[in-house]
Amino acid sequence: MFVYADNAATTKVRPAALRAFTEVAETYFGNPSSLHTAGQRAQEELTRCREKIARLLGAEPREIYFTSGGSESDNQAILSAAYAGARKGKKKIVSTAIEHHAVLHTLEKLKKEGFEVILLPVGTDGIVKAEDAAREIDENTCLVSVMLANNEIGTIQPVAEIGAVCREKKVPFHTDAVQAVGHIPVDVKTLGCDYLALSGHKFGAPRGVGALYVRKGAPLSSLIEGGAQERGKRAGTENLPAIAAMAAALEEAVNNLPAYTRKVTVLRDRLIEKLSAIPHCALNGDPKKRLCNNVSFCFEGIEGESLLLLLDEEGICASSGSACTSGSLDPSHVLLAIGRVHDVAHGSLRLTLSEETTEEEVDYIAEKVGYVVSYLRNMSPVWRDLTEGKRKYIL
Amino acid sequence: MFVYADNAATTKVRPAALRAFTEVAETYFGNPSSLHTAGQRAQEELTRCREKIARLLGAEPREIYFTSGGSESDNQAILSAAYAGARKGKKKIVSTAIEHHAVLHTLEKLKKEGFEVILLPVGTDGIVKAEDAAREIDENTCLVSVMLANNEIGTIQPVAEIGAVCREKKVPFHTDAVQAVGHIPVDVKTLGCDYLALSGHKFGAPRGVGALYVRKGAPLSSLIEGGAQERGKRAGTENLPAIAAMAAALEEAVNNLPAYTRKVTVLRDRLIEKLSAIPHCALNGDPKKRLCNNVSFCFEGIEGESLLLLLDEEGICASSGSACTSGSLDPSHVLLAIGRVHDVAHGSLRLTLSEETTEEEVDYIAEKVGYVVSYLRNMSPVWRDLTEGKRKYIL
Repeated sequence: MFVYADNAATTKVRPAALRAFTEVAETYFGNPSSLHTAGQRAQEELTRCREKIARLLGAEPREIYFTSGGSESDNQAILSAAYAGARKGKKKIVSTAIEHHAVLHTLEKLKKEGFEVILLPVGTDGIVKAEDAAREIDENTCLVSVMLANNEIGTIQPVAEIGAVCREKKVPFHTDAVQAVGHIPVDVKTLGCDYLALSGHKFGAPRGVGALYVRKGAPLSSLIEGGAQERGKRAGTENLPAIAAMAAALEEAVNNLPAYTRKVTVLRDRLIEKLSAIPHCALNGDPKKRLCNNVSFCFEGIEGESLLLLLDEEGICASSGSACTSGSLDPSHVLLAIGRVHDVAHGSLRLTLSEETTEEEVDYIAEKVGYVVSYLRNMSPVWRDLTEGKRKYIL
Repeated sequence: MFVYADNAATTKVRPAALRAFTEVAETYFGNPSSLHTAGQRAQEELTRCREKIARLLGAEPREIYFTSGGSESDNQAILSAAYAGARKGKKKIVSTAIEHHAVLHTLEKLKKEGFEVILLPVGTDGIVKAEDAAREIDENTCLVSVMLANNEIGTIQPVAEIGAVCREKKVPFHTDAVQAVGHIPVDVKTLGCDYLALSGHKFGAPRGVGALYVRKGAPLSSLIEGGAQERGKRAGTENLPAIAAMAAALEEAVNNLPAYTRKVTVLRDRLIEKLSAIPHCALNGDPKKRLCNNVSFCFEGIEGESLLLLLDEEGICASSGSACTSGSLDPSHVLLAIGRVHDVAHGSLRLTLSEETTEEEVDYIAEKVGYVVSYLRNMSPVWRDLTEGKRKYIL
């Protein structure tokens, strides 16, 4: 059996999206900046895609900027707000300890440039508190950046609440919605954000395309200089076929959201229940306030990497956390933030389902995880110490 | 008749490239950073693409970094060299007056940050002189940036000569090869460059993908922060289907280069000869040291935009210059640099052919351009003044 349970790393391209890509590549082959018919037809298609994506997010078309993906969108939003703030003498940024590296590494870069960066803690449930954000915001704050859904443990943050605080305090607010868009309802007005980053390949569009929502009036500077594309804010010939594929994928995802959520929530909860039966393990993050497709566990006494490799031999594609940091030996900053100690954080497993996932697959995963965890524990000196009482169980 | 003669703006996607895109999107759907089989197979495909592209450019695979396109590549190369130079107290950059805006606007940004930017002139032939570059390079120079082929007038610059000067003077050298790759032989060793930017959609790959060659040992900093993709220098999930499409397109273009060059040079020269018969016009740029598919003219007494729109009505897709600046009312900086006065620079026409262009199409273009130029001149008050001797002809 082959089970792809790593949809948070990347999704398969939806057939409708791949079809849109091919059709647009062949039909609207002109450069949207060209004045001739081929160019203008491409420009019209670009406008239609922008309108569709804007509508699906509750935004105005002119508030949508197309980028190469989530990382670029996050970088551009954060740098734009930070540098605009610095010009007014405001150099404090409030974010959280569980952001994606596209946010955290950009904040580190700004820290080196003299910005003060406050990373709010999260509870053991993996959720940040709006009042903590409110407490940290002061007259020097130029940006608050809080992700909508965490990429490792799937927890959904109180972004609308934080957005309301930011609006009240008149502080620009960015949300990294890369894992959320297409998976939960996302409306920029409800969230009250000034910036919102999304990535196509997390909801069935091809890789290499994303968008940045920028509320009308919020500062935006270029990350990539050159031609006047995207109203002068993002140079480079517009990636029209991929943008059309993203529009098609988002439309399908949003239209299908109620059915997707219903179906996948049942599968998620079934998988959580089955895995919870394994001794000395723990679900990471709140059991309900999480993406309907995210299951994340820590298993005591084993190494997550070995778990992944043995599951892979059973045909199961899973992850220990973020794909972007696999290969790193450091334990996940997200798992540390929710209070997992190093050893336990190393024994993590993330399973992210899709609307194609079946009950049979979920049961297969649960069976194999149980088997592989036992197998690894039997070989683990740490586990032997635990069972012999030389070491105390944490989970 | 429909004739697409704007291949410098963007090319149609080659069928082999579109096929590669679709196949790779479906077959190698995993995230190359994932440890499981789907991820590792994607990683292997990424390696194969990197090896292929490196080989076709005479580079080592680890010297190739994938980006979202030419603009991003240019930005990253220039900023990397500039900031590395600044750390050693070197803040002088030597470039040319005819670079693409992806280079010029990045240099303007650096100028605001205190860098000295020297833009070398070009002759009326549209070609920069290596000795001019040599003369400007001093101990404060941190970067020389000279494009390989101009995007408006197609002139090919003496990049290998300039590269030799830079190597001798130990100054980092970047070449924007966006218009050149796939159209003339490009070998990074022969060119002697430290950085080389290319864009897939200029040689039959889809839009939204490009690469940056960085000679081993040359400084490289991230433009987009986040995950550790591209050896920590370019965050964001690798755009594998588009990278595979680019590899396929480049391979086809390079393999076909001799036949393409032979065929299209004949068509170009035929078109130049026929258009030269129109009174009071001039070819822009050297007639031979230019891309085999580029024909660029100025016609006295008319507006380039009207020319384009009327040609479009005849089914001919052409451009006045760069697609990235269409919509701007300023005359082309490239045409001004080769000595065209404002009025004449406004009457420009760029026709860029492909291997699909036929002799019949070339003759059709020549006939329609002749017709439209006459038509517009008949309505032009400037032309009336010229014919009545109230104004002097420039061309």
